[in-house]
Amino acid sequence: MDQQRLQQQIAFVLEIDRLKTIRRRTYLTDTSRFENSAEHSWHVAVMAMVMAEHSNFADMDASRVIRMLLVHDLVEIDAGDTFAYDEQARQDKKEREQAAAERVFGLLPADQAAAFRGLWEEFEDRQTPEARFAAALDRIQPLLHNLCTRGKSWQEHGVREEQVLALNRHSAEGSAALWEYAARWIQKAVENGDLPR
Amino acid sequence: MDQQRLQQQIAFVLEIDRLKTIRRRTYLTDTSRFENSAEHSWHVAVMAMVMAEHSNFADMDASRVIRMLLVHDLVEIDAGDTFAYDEQARQDKKEREQAAAERVFGLLPADQAAAFRGLWEEFEDRQTPEARFAAALDRIQPLLHNLCTRGKSWQEHGVREEQVLALNRHSAEGSAALWEYAARWIQKAVENGDLPR
Repeated sequence: MDQQRLQQQIAFVLEIDRLKTIRRRTYLTDTSRFENSAEHSWHVAVMAMVMAEHSNFADMDASRVIRMLLVHDLVEIDAGDTFAYDEQARQDKKEREQAAAERVFGLLPADQAAAFRGLWEEFEDRQTPEARFAAALDRIQPLLHNLCTRGKSWQEHGVREEQVLALNRHSAEGSAALWEYAARWIQKAVENGDLPR
Repeated sequence: MDQQRLQQQIAFVLEIDRLKTIRRRTYLTDTSRFENSAEHSWHVAVMAMVMAEHSNFADMDASRVIRMLLVHDLVEIDAGDTFAYDEQARQDKKEREQAAAERVFGLLPADQAAAFRGLWEEFEDRQTPEARFAAALDRIQPLLHNLCTRGKSWQEHGVREEQVLALNRHSAEGSAALWEYAARWIQKAVENGDLPR
């Protein structure tokens, strides 16, 4: 076995442990604490296993979606989680995340670094069936959590209906079925007073 | 779309959020807190992406290993995490976990409930190449954390070298290469005084 290659792989595996300390703005469904990006990544990957049949694309490779979701937030180890509704933080997000991708994926042997970075860039570009479906799940999971907790995170950040619709609408490009369903929940949240108009 | 089917899938997706509250005995590499089972599941799934080349089995389906690892701990939602070195708790583990599998996977539509439970049972039985390799990663990840934290969890639970070897040796059935490497780390931990003989 190539010991240097294995050493690089282990260095990467130990480094990514830090994703467990990156706090998101989404609450767990029991509202006991904020979710972190590692457990979020696990959750959306399992969602891909369960929900793949709702993709817009019959020829989608669900295993590729799962892999993409497992690595889609790794850049946050350096770049932090950018709250989806924070317009200012989103402005230099791309730059911060490119530098992070360079360092974090660069810990791997060169062939794997390129493959992992390729998966992350595919996710960010949202052009392939796999990336569109993965992006839909990445939006719908926090939506579910917000609906479950009566909009706790939305309310704490003063988020309104039009922002939720503007940010999440692209989910329909990955799954018209899941977005149709989610749009109904959002409507109900507005009616219940959990999400201000 | 079959709305009842989607409702069952969403009920499952929301229920499994609880895996994020199941505390393991392994520390994060920065020792700031214990790891939970959801983020552990994410970590070993990414390890499968990185380490598949070290499997003993050339014809292994790595995507199946990833799926298996994503669901391998879901029974802990009801059954709790059984510390690997707690002999007493391990005695009724099987019974507790079978009941949990019945309920948790049973939230899914029948075809998916059977498929997910099948993956979990395959993991537990450790007979297929995929299950053997998945089981190896499930043992090697906490080993790495223990080595990183100078045996913090081992020491707090009075775990000795022979217990570590007895419990983890089966990793060689999934990956002789990774076990050979791990056995060297264990040896070093003994020499450093991080793991008592």
